[in-house]
Amino acid sequence: MNYDHIFQDAQEAFLQFKKISGKSKAGFLRKIASNIEAEKTTLIPLASSESNLPEGRITGELGRTVGQIKLFADLVEEGSWVEAVIDHANPERTPAPKPDLRRFLTALGPVVVFGASNFPLAFSTAGGDTISALAAGCPVIYKGHPAHPKTSELVGQLISKAVADSGLPFGLFTHIEGGVEEGQELVKHRMAKAVAFTGSYKGGKAIFDLANQREEPIPVFAEMGSVNPIITLENKLGSNIEGLAKSFVSSLTLGAGQFCTNPGLIMVPQIHTDAFCNAVKKEIKEIAAAPMLHEGIAKAYYDSLAKLKSKEELEWLQINSAEDIIKAHPALAKITANDWLEDDLFQEEVFGSFAIVVIYKDSEELLAIARKLQGQLTITLWGEEEELSQKSALINLLEEKCGRLLFKGVPTGVEVGYAMQHGGPYPSTSDSRSTSVGAYAIKRFARPIAFQDMPEKLLPDALKESNPLGIWRMIDGELNNRY
Amino acid sequence: MNYDHIFQDAQEAFLQFKKISGKSKAGFLRKIASNIEAEKTTLIPLASSESNLPEGRITGELGRTVGQIKLFADLVEEGSWVEAVIDHANPERTPAPKPDLRRFLTALGPVVVFGASNFPLAFSTAGGDTISALAAGCPVIYKGHPAHPKTSELVGQLISKAVADSGLPFGLFTHIEGGVEEGQELVKHRMAKAVAFTGSYKGGKAIFDLANQREEPIPVFAEMGSVNPIITLENKLGSNIEGLAKSFVSSLTLGAGQFCTNPGLIMVPQIHTDAFCNAVKKEIKEIAAAPMLHEGIAKAYYDSLAKLKSKEELEWLQINSAEDIIKAHPALAKITANDWLEDDLFQEEVFGSFAIVVIYKDSEELLAIARKLQGQLTITLWGEEEELSQKSALINLLEEKCGRLLFKGVPTGVEVGYAMQHGGPYPSTSDSRSTSVGAYAIKRFARPIAFQDMPEKLLPDALKESNPLGIWRMIDGELNNRY
Repeated sequence: MNYDHIFQDAQEAFLQFKKISGKSKAGFLRKIASNIEAEKTTLIPLASSESNLPEGRITGELGRTVGQIKLFADLVEEGSWVEAVIDHANPERTPAPKPDLRRFLTALGPVVVFGASNFPLAFSTAGGDTISALAAGCPVIYKGHPAHPKTSELVGQLISKAVADSGLPFGLFTHIEGGVEEGQELVKHRMAKAVAFTGSYKGGKAIFDLANQREEPIPVFAEMGSVNPIITLENKLGSNIEGLAKSFVSSLTLGAGQFCTNPGLIMVPQIHTDAFCNAVKKEIKEIAAAPMLHEGIAKAYYDSLAKLKSKEELEWLQINSAEDIIKAHPALAKITANDWLEDDLFQEEVFGSFAIVVIYKDSEELLAIARKLQGQLTITLWGEEEELSQKSALINLLEEKCGRLLFKGVPTGVEVGYAMQHGGPYPSTSDSRSTSVGAYAIKRFARPIAFQDMPEKLLPDALKESNPLGIWRMIDGELNNRY
Repeated sequence: MNYDHIFQDAQEAFLQFKKISGKSKAGFLRKIASNIEAEKTTLIPLASSESNLPEGRITGELGRTVGQIKLFADLVEEGSWVEAVIDHANPERTPAPKPDLRRFLTALGPVVVFGASNFPLAFSTAGGDTISALAAGCPVIYKGHPAHPKTSELVGQLISKAVADSGLPFGLFTHIEGGVEEGQELVKHRMAKAVAFTGSYKGGKAIFDLANQREEPIPVFAEMGSVNPIITLENKLGSNIEGLAKSFVSSLTLGAGQFCTNPGLIMVPQIHTDAFCNAVKKEIKEIAAAPMLHEGIAKAYYDSLAKLKSKEELEWLQINSAEDIIKAHPALAKITANDWLEDDLFQEEVFGSFAIVVIYKDSEELLAIARKLQGQLTITLWGEEEELSQKSALINLLEEKCGRLLFKGVPTGVEVGYAMQHGGPYPSTSDSRSTSVGAYAIKRFARPIAFQDMPEKLLPDALKESNPLGIWRMIDGELNNRY
């Protein structure tokens, strides 16, 4: 496979695209959104049939995909995301005169994006990674996920149509089909400047290593999933065991458990062991076996369970053998905190509707669990306000282990807004300093550049003295949006 | 070497330190600054004798070091650097209620900092890396540079004194002596969360690779130097050949050429070849041999020149053999753009006062040079405004190759302020998305965390509804500093 032409076209498109106004960029992004909306009666059944996800779920996902695009369109149209900073000159300063310095964020260059199997729309072709890279000013070379080739190709065409209709160079977006080998070639290509990926730890880590072994290493933003523990405190759980068991099971089994944020661990105080386990067992029995995204994923799910079944520390609360090659039953096991602390296997993600209930004796054991936890996308802490106020040491530790800490509700259902952080410490992502959901996902694909004593006429609009864009800027240490 | 205790102390200090107010943090940083100022009559001669840098230069560097610390103190006292973002709940939203989400930057954890040989104060023990990490809330395990052990140790004591006098845990700062092996152990330690380094490409790359091969890879912010090309355009150079030759030579030879930003390449239009070369030769003859930082550096300088001398494409304008084991003469060679384009060796950094004058024929050749350039900390473009206005394609390309683009003056002399970007594309740094000088250096050592539906009482002050810190925050998509 030789991708030279594709990257050369992308590089050419880049030099042109990075100079267009935020307003034009927003117009282009909104065209992608309206192209997708216009094709929704085709896209929804297509994505549903390729992913085995129900049409209702795909309908929601399409809405989310369009909403994301509009958020980034608004962001680049408003323009302040470039973090413009101006330090004025002072020719009188001694011992040396102070130069005029202006800094803002500029796009990285061509970016390789990998599609995710579990979100054929929102984390795939026109998903958050592609759109935030385009919003930043980066051309995208997109490798579709082989699990939904037709959906991927159709959305790719809708993006390319928006590129053409906006009078932009076609190299701005390229859709590539392929498997592991093609993906590796893209990551290794000398003109690639960053990679975005959502998927398994194994896949993300392989890409991360490859990118770092290049002659010019490039950043990899890999969201690799996690087990998203829910920690329950005594009074809160005791106040509503059945309701909370229901919330937990419904989050665990949503979409056959195929969400990055589905909770695969729940910590329960010893005193509530039986009541909670009974409630959960009752809830989980109601959940029918659900088709997974593809056969490989269903097989991996049952293989992981088989591996865990050999562990005698686990007591199984619910387990069924595979019914057919694609459908999977939810499964649940119980373990003491003492045993859980002994083996990292018990916090490895099992992609699907499986969770471990960890029974803890006291606050000390809970702190030990918190210390042992690996990096997570999310941690949820269910406690009454009064309980929580005595848990500052626990909360302090939990902050170190996640990107998002919840005090109500369940971790599935990731808001797309300004305050979302979807990215936690390793191994949940390869870069805890970034988010792959929400407005600030755009920052992954930009870097600061400073201009020293640049003539006013040459300055980009964001840095011109008159602030023609009316954006927020840090001027001589003070934030303002004067113009 | 077993650093477990040091990292455990650092981790304990971290959990306490990250919760203290910006005001207290600022007070602590200012204590470090005043401790350094109080010892300046000891520090200046000591650092000068250990580095062979003249006392005048060290005096300036001490002022810069203290100024940097005060900048970070002001930054954390003001507090808006944490990028607080609030998206309010909307319980009425359909189909699902919207949760309350609040996001800000939190410190990464214990950070390993390496001292630089060429700035015994400003990029060493209490230099920009240490101070920006502390300002972010990260404990620092600092490995002193063996070239200035006594300076390093003394400054380390001044920091530890500030830690103690501020009632902070001693694990917040640890000074370690050692060489390569000790450095490797620190980078590999499982409790280290990031690394900052300023030095050679070889050293930075080794640390980068080591950090990425860890079980938990960690970010490395390595500033690895560059050749900082100056590109001269015909009219501008023609208007003042002697003056510009003088500026160039003085920047090249400042501090025996031992700055990350000293210009090791200058592009000259063919028409001015003789006049410029004569002017430069005249200037450079006036420069006496100067002592380098240590014998190893002087030897490496002459070794690099010896390697280049075998290249017949180079015409030597100035070259002297080594006078003694520590002093070095400036050296200068000339090459045609055509030959320069053929070999990457001609853009490898030679640490010291050496530069190559590249003679280009026309705009096409200049664009070819720009395309060929590796990532640089800085690029300087000297042109008349009218010439520059015809060079948008060149400027567009140059932006891709550097972190700071200058239009006047010389690249040495890096301002410490808000708008500085000291960090360019690889290989000048390992992460072009970061800066190691200026206020935003603090961002390297922090990551976002989001709190979902956190009870008001538990929220950090930066995220409390009432905005008790009076900081700038993004609230429901609008920036404001109401309180």
